Amino acid sequence: MPGNRRFVLLRRPSGVPVPEDFALVSSDMPKVPQNGFVVRNHFASLDPAQRGWMDDAESYLPPIPLGDAVRATTVGVVQESDNPAFPVGQWVLGLNALEDYSVATPGGFTRCIDVSAVASPSHYLSALGAVGLTAYFGLADVARPKPGETLLVSGAAGAVGSAVGQIGKILGCRVIGIAGGEDKCRRLLADYGFDVAIDYKGKDHAALVAAIAQAAPAGVDIVFENVGGPVMEATVFNLALRARIVLCGLISEYNAPEKVGLRNLWQIIARRATIHGYLIADYADRFPQGATQMAGWMADGRLRVDEDVQHGLENAYPAFMRLFTGENTGKLILKIA
Amino acid sequence: MPGNRRFVLLRRPSGVPVPEDFALVSSDMPKVPQNGFVVRNHFASLDPAQRGWMDDAESYLPPIPLGDAVRATTVGVVQESDNPAFPVGQWVLGLNALEDYSVATPGGFTRCIDVSAVASPSHYLSALGAVGLTAYFGLADVARPKPGETLLVSGAAGAVGSAVGQIGKILGCRVIGIAGGEDKCRRLLADYGFDVAIDYKGKDHAALVAAIAQAAPAGVDIVFENVGGPVMEATVFNLALRARIVLCGLISEYNAPEKVGLRNLWQIIARRATIHGYLIADYADRFPQGATQMAGWMADGRLRVDEDVQHGLENAYPAFMRLFTGENTGKLILKIA
Repeated sequence: MPGNRRFVLLRRPSGVPVPEDFALVSSDMPKVPQNGFVVRNHFASLDPAQRGWMDDAESYLPPIPLGDAVRATTVGVVQESDNPAFPVGQWVLGLNALEDYSVATPGGFTRCIDVSAVASPSHYLSALGAVGLTAYFGLADVARPKPGETLLVSGAAGAVGSAVGQIGKILGCRVIGIAGGEDKCRRLLADYGFDVAIDYKGKDHAALVAAIAQAAPAGVDIVFENVGGPVMEATVFNLALRARIVLCGLISEYNAPEKVGLRNLWQIIARRATIHGYLIADYADRFPQGATQMAGWMADGRLRVDEDVQHGLENAYPAFMRLFTGENTGKLILKIA
Repeated sequence: MPGNRRFVLLRRPSGVPVPEDFALVSSDMPKVPQNGFVVRNHFASLDPAQRGWMDDAESYLPPIPLGDAVRATTVGVVQESDNPAFPVGQWVLGLNALEDYSVATPGGFTRCIDVSAVASPSHYLSALGAVGLTAYFGLADVARPKPGETLLVSGAAGAVGSAVGQIGKILGCRVIGIAGGEDKCRRLLADYGFDVAIDYKGKDHAALVAAIAQAAPAGVDIVFENVGGPVMEATVFNLALRARIVLCGLISEYNAPEKVGLRNLWQIIARRATIHGYLIADYADRFPQGATQMAGWMADGRLRVDEDVQHGLENAYPAFMRLFTGENTGKLILKIA
């Protein structure tokens, strides 16, 4: 009878996690709970949020208990079931853990997925997961672009930003991306089809404002904001009348002891712009709809979402650390089986 | 032959305007332009927006040219005319300047007004003018309150703010006002029917956040923002989910050399709030509709709009400064003739 390998949290990391914070242990196969099922995990999502769950701090989810496997969103196949809605052999997605087999019950994000629509089930953790759907709903549903509008994306070379830019092109926008460094800007143009790439590095405020003005002489109609701070302020000086700003993330602010915020807030009045605070969690009940649209665009070859797939539960620690060294190029995923 | 006294901008103020930024100069009487007219100004509106027009910054209107009279909305009587739609003796309203006589041509806000319908022609600069209609359209059309929602108004004792609060009550909201000083707060409750008045003076950030939280335990659904800066930030820490912020003015920022902006912008994401940059100018074609509604509420005794009428072009500077010292109680108006 096969065992269940589990990547467990032994102690709460102090700062950057070290290998001794974890252990790969072998457990008995889990029992099927009433009305639930056991899932054979195939792919797990590796995300910065997991580092937060390792701390003993209240958040939107409780801390991972010491001695328990590290919580992760996974896709896998139902192995045993006490629920006819999740029959044996069915592919499912859910908030499980870094382990061969997880016990699951209906509720939360747990749902059946159609892997026939995608090249790899892992796509449900990238293009058809939170990353891709953040881009899709934020642009298509919050900003609602009209063909011919100018879209500016900050953090454009990131997983969300690169998807936003491509969806913008599909929906008929002229797309400007802001990213840090020549290589990222080259990829915006070559890999993701952006019309203009602006490298914010080495540019002072006036130079960045001028670069955006040159790229969008009639102003920016839609901003998909992932960065905040001075990059956002430079964009806000280039808004078209009635611009819409999808406020998705402020990554430049999270570790800053002094928050910059938005010092040129007055421009929001002057341009009659709208800022929409946006969290993908609000769209959970529309994930299947979004995933169908994203899968269709991928099948048509109009959308690429890069994955960085690492292999094996025994490599969970070095794989996870790629998030913090910047080694990963694309959505980081661990292949378990 | 009479001269034309003009209150001109000599240099762009640095921070708070000083008397040396202006001069009262005497000019020749203006000539009637083709198809236009000369208006004898009787009342001029004094508004925070004028401070913005004094800066050398692009906005929805160009900066006031140095050496030119300070731009202002006025009501007056046609003195000479080359346009039969604006005959001599007709009362008119328009975007003119702080001067005895202005040259006007049809277009923009310029229109004839019926002073027989009001107790004073100045009411076209308060309840039936931009102030009253800013309150009306900003609340009724941008925020679209639902009965039972909690509305917070900053700068609540001001001309716009006090109207917003009263309209909020008429539309079924619970209304919280923030103002500076005990006397203003007393007036919010006694004169304008606010449910709660919060005095921001003498409160540090934590105390102001706590006072708003106590007044709105379930969070603020609608913010009508006239002030910006730390007062706005304290409000933003108390937003209900999906709150709407009508961004109407940022008077605390206009004289500040270092803009505070909105340092807790992250809360806009966390609360999925929306910020709507709002200018009454966009509603010009609906002014008659709004004025009819406001006039009806005033006739019913449900709405009062106070005026603070100062006298004489020679007092333009101290009159204008009442906006920034908080001395004015009601819509600030300069009586010119």
